[in-house]
Amino acid sequence: MDSMTFVLFGSTGDLAKRKIYPALYNLYLDKKMPPAFSIVGVGRREWSDEEFQASIAQSIRTFSRRPHPDPSELETFLAAFRYCAVDVTDPEAFHPLLSVVTQRETELGLPENRMFYLSVAPEFFDVIAANIKACGLGETTGWKRLIIEKPFGHDLNSARQLNEKLSAAFSEEEIYRIDHYLGKPMVQNLEALEFANPVFQALWNNQYIANVQITAGETVGVEERAGYYDQAGALRDMVQNHLLQMLMMTAMHVPKRMTASDIRAEKRKVMEAVRPLKTEDVWKHVVRGQYGAGEVLGKKVVGYLEEPGVRPDSQTDTFVAARVWIDDPFWQGVPFYIRTGKRMKEKSTRIVIEFKNPLEKLYRQKREKPAPNLLIISVNPDEGIALQVNSKNPSNRGKIEPVTVDFSAGTEDVPEAYELLLFDALRGDSTYFAHWKEVELSWIWVEPILQAFRENLVPLHEYTAGSHGPKQARDLLAADGFSWWLDKEPERQPIPVHS
Amino acid sequence: MDSMTFVLFGSTGDLAKRKIYPALYNLYLDKKMPPAFSIVGVGRREWSDEEFQASIAQSIRTFSRRPHPDPSELETFLAAFRYCAVDVTDPEAFHPLLSVVTQRETELGLPENRMFYLSVAPEFFDVIAANIKACGLGETTGWKRLIIEKPFGHDLNSARQLNEKLSAAFSEEEIYRIDHYLGKPMVQNLEALEFANPVFQALWNNQYIANVQITAGETVGVEERAGYYDQAGALRDMVQNHLLQMLMMTAMHVPKRMTASDIRAEKRKVMEAVRPLKTEDVWKHVVRGQYGAGEVLGKKVVGYLEEPGVRPDSQTDTFVAARVWIDDPFWQGVPFYIRTGKRMKEKSTRIVIEFKNPLEKLYRQKREKPAPNLLIISVNPDEGIALQVNSKNPSNRGKIEPVTVDFSAGTEDVPEAYELLLFDALRGDSTYFAHWKEVELSWIWVEPILQAFRENLVPLHEYTAGSHGPKQARDLLAADGFSWWLDKEPERQPIPVHS
Repeated sequence: MDSMTFVLFGSTGDLAKRKIYPALYNLYLDKKMPPAFSIVGVGRREWSDEEFQASIAQSIRTFSRRPHPDPSELETFLAAFRYCAVDVTDPEAFHPLLSVVTQRETELGLPENRMFYLSVAPEFFDVIAANIKACGLGETTGWKRLIIEKPFGHDLNSARQLNEKLSAAFSEEEIYRIDHYLGKPMVQNLEALEFANPVFQALWNNQYIANVQITAGETVGVEERAGYYDQAGALRDMVQNHLLQMLMMTAMHVPKRMTASDIRAEKRKVMEAVRPLKTEDVWKHVVRGQYGAGEVLGKKVVGYLEEPGVRPDSQTDTFVAARVWIDDPFWQGVPFYIRTGKRMKEKSTRIVIEFKNPLEKLYRQKREKPAPNLLIISVNPDEGIALQVNSKNPSNRGKIEPVTVDFSAGTEDVPEAYELLLFDALRGDSTYFAHWKEVELSWIWVEPILQAFRENLVPLHEYTAGSHGPKQARDLLAADGFSWWLDKEPERQPIPVHS
Repeated sequence: MDSMTFVLFGSTGDLAKRKIYPALYNLYLDKKMPPAFSIVGVGRREWSDEEFQASIAQSIRTFSRRPHPDPSELETFLAAFRYCAVDVTDPEAFHPLLSVVTQRETELGLPENRMFYLSVAPEFFDVIAANIKACGLGETTGWKRLIIEKPFGHDLNSARQLNEKLSAAFSEEEIYRIDHYLGKPMVQNLEALEFANPVFQALWNNQYIANVQITAGETVGVEERAGYYDQAGALRDMVQNHLLQMLMMTAMHVPKRMTASDIRAEKRKVMEAVRPLKTEDVWKHVVRGQYGAGEVLGKKVVGYLEEPGVRPDSQTDTFVAARVWIDDPFWQGVPFYIRTGKRMKEKSTRIVIEFKNPLEKLYRQKREKPAPNLLIISVNPDEGIALQVNSKNPSNRGKIEPVTVDFSAGTEDVPEAYELLLFDALRGDSTYFAHWKEVELSWIWVEPILQAFRENLVPLHEYTAGSHGPKQARDLLAADGFSWWLDKEPERQPIPVHS
């Protein structure tokens, strides 16, 4: 790993405090930082280096998964940090930043490898990239990289415009677009699951798989993000990026080699094969919902329209479910169901693969109905893989019953998404960052849905906060003879499990 | 389930006390006995009904998995028992037995359904069957069934002779040959595993399976059975019956229907496809061993030749390992390795299925070597199914490591083999009994090995008590590029598992 400079825009912001500093510190403790490095924080407010370092120390104590830093280790770590106040819209203001960066490079004998992390509001992405170039920060004898956060555009056009502007300062290989779902250990594990296990690889196609269900449910409402969220909605906030990324990771075929470019090429192929929707047909495959008042985890909560910061007549989607078809020979006939919502019954991100049951008939004569085999990949908040198989219960006259087995990795001391992603970016491994083509293809697929929502061609169903979303999301699967697996519902019998 | 009479020959014997009475009692408690039944014990010694019933009560208290019988329930149960002293070699002696049976049938209003259980030395099998017929016990207006224990012959000829004699009194459909390994819950579960789980069914062939390893290891020596064992050896005692039965259960294909006759037909097809060995080639595929002195589970033990009751120059095999080929299109190219021994390092009966690893190359570039996927079926003493898959370890830089998952049934309160088998026999379900054809085909396969052992064409390797058998058993697999999985060896690294 090359020694380098890490320039963090938005260094006084919330994401930096909650995620980035703790991640850098844990990488440092785990000896996953470069041999030598300089970190320069950029923000609007006038701070001294000492004030900056004190705020980082505070953030580590509050948010790190290892909350009790060793004082001398922490001190050495903090010594790498400098602060520079910059009005990012002012090209002139970048010259002092350049001075700090080069001065530290000289002091520490660092090669001119520079990583720029934009943890700022999206409207500043392009201007910062342009000013990095203009002031000469981007002209290095080593490498340069740009890490940016979501959202990447709010529709296809704005995404393309943003990409064009970024491309003027950075090449595609230099841009690391964070989709933090790609940093989640179980999403990264999908690749090992599919390609390092012949038993799963053999089953990973339409001959054996009946359907795939990708759920990302939240119990929270819009919280403090109403201003942004009411303009975005679930489709932009979750579907275009996270859900489609999980879909690509699940459906991709074996790459020729396990390299970033080959893996991302396979993901792209999936997205290229996703069947486009016509605006007038969207309602057949997509369910739109908005939460009303209800009860979540035992607490009464208001409906979306009552949330502070939300327009009282808002038509914004807080729930989206969709049926997605992938038109390639591997997935022909296998529906991928995706679903996300706020104020749902439970916080759960998971991928459930339901296998076909061709041997059902064999047992019908014995008046037994084996449950389908399920592969359950729990992404959040629990992490794990579970397989549901049928087994005879010798205590119950040899009756065949489903047994679910977890092969979960221990969740203690597991690096967080930001640690994994930063480590990869530091090494220059872009496997788990969103390629522009993935982003563009996702927007292309989402575009007719956005339009159909805008033109009200898809009904907006109210659902009770604390439910599994509108009934129509269940009907979507029922129409194909399926149902959502593992939804915790009091009115539904739990799957009998003996373990 | 029909009301009936159960006639137990060998009713004062060890097996009856340890297994049969506890099994009948537990079936009774679980409401798995017929609505009305009479049980008549037959033995040599002169006992009253009361003495007989007292010995049964004692056996239940000592050996039942539920050792604290409710006194009134036990009393009702014991009331069903009568005793009759019979010299089984004397045809005349069967008339009093007939009287007891018919008298009880009248008293209890039982239909003439009669089950005869021969828990006696094998030399009495034929004479008892003949005398049952001669005295008229076998002429019933209802059904009659014969349950017999192993051994079924000591070679092909004697087995055929025995079968002919039994066939004079009972039809094949009426004969229930106990192989108590077929009564073990996990052996019965093989069928559900293979046929009720599309994910396993899809993998159950030579496209995905590299090899199958069937082990039945014991830590005990010959104990009190030296007289019998020194004449029999491991090949007759374990291979011809239990190991080949497990092989048939593992390798059978999906039957048309889940009936006893269809399932046993599939097992037969496996045995018919097992490649015969030529006497002169046996040494290439079979390893013969005999234990020397050593240490088992921390205790010093003598070698086989020092065991009381063993001929000092005995060449008897206490260990056999073999490579078995099944010449059908499903298993072409997949070696089945079977292995059994006394005085081994551990007591373990298990079936390990090693899957092929076609994707190995993909990871070689990343200098990672995924372990093969394994399906592990633990039969005894632990019961369970485990799958070894590869998963990224996020705590170890995403390195791919094997994770083993158990989906074990709870082992508390699980019926024992004899309960499952007796319950099936009472219902007339012969699925888990050895059909004559299975027995005959097994003897046909074993015959050249017996001959090669007799003619000393296969070296007899001494192995240290407490080891995994002779080194040559490892060489047998090494020659094919494989090794025995899950052998606990101090010199070998355990498989890294994070769970």
